[in-house]
Amino acid sequence: MLTRIDHVGIACRDLDQKIAFYESTFGLSVVSLEVNEPQGVREAMLQVAHGPAGGSYVQLLEPLAPDTPVGRFLERRGEGVHHVGYGVADITAALAQIGATGIRLIDSRPRHGSMGASIAFLHPADLGGVLTELVQAAPPPDD
Amino acid sequence: MLTRIDHVGIACRDLDQKIAFYESTFGLSVVSLEVNEPQGVREAMLQVAHGPAGGSYVQLLEPLAPDTPVGRFLERRGEGVHHVGYGVADITAALAQIGATGIRLIDSRPRHGSMGASIAFLHPADLGGVLTELVQAAPPPDD
Repeated sequence: MLTRIDHVGIACRDLDQKIAFYESTFGLSVVSLEVNEPQGVREAMLQVAHGPAGGSYVQLLEPLAPDTPVGRFLERRGEGVHHVGYGVADITAALAQIGATGIRLIDSRPRHGSMGASIAFLHPADLGGVLTELVQAAPPPDD
Repeated sequence: MLTRIDHVGIACRDLDQKIAFYESTFGLSVVSLEVNEPQGVREAMLQVAHGPAGGSYVQLLEPLAPDTPVGRFLERRGEGVHHVGYGVADITAALAQIGATGIRLIDSRPRHGSMGASIAFLHPADLGGVLTELVQAAPPPDD
């Protein structure tokens, strides 16, 4: 079902500082910088690898306000890994299959993620403490 | 410098239970099951993707005793993401380059990791709370 590790989502307090750090330390480059109002974050995707089914990224997340999921995470845990995103070919089918096992779906239907992807989160309490995201990458643009 | 997300290391209390869970939920398969005495863990690698430079894995980690790094992590934080491992082509060169930036190296020289890889950890306090590992995969066996 899983096709790749799409991204590791890392919560940080200062997005611009953390982008500069990952660029200078590891030679990564930002391929997307977005504000996601519904999720309450400003976020950057830094590409680690390319692949036929989609890339792999470090996703840096800065909360738009303290009273957001990432803001509360920072308050509770400090900076660090917030979630893990795995690539899937068909997110609707994957959600149906996973939901049938009894795992709680935070998103029972896909919603919009970074770079036009369709995403859905699974409940960390049912996944050994790991907030887990499924990612169906956006189709490549037509030529 | 980074070639892929090699693995996400997840701390758990019951390795066999968690292996069965990842297998049944996501269709992953164990490709390596090892005891690493120096690191104080029993660990499984479940393959998510294949790639020319090396695979991507979910790494499940069960401490051999409470007084080990992963045992202390579980005591402090509970189950969840313990570290992130990135692939590099030349770990010695990568360590020299990263060390020159002032980031503290937990391992100044590579040591043995899962599946014959050479690995080294970087200090999480210098990486925004993310325990970060570099992984140079073992060369493929000769034919």
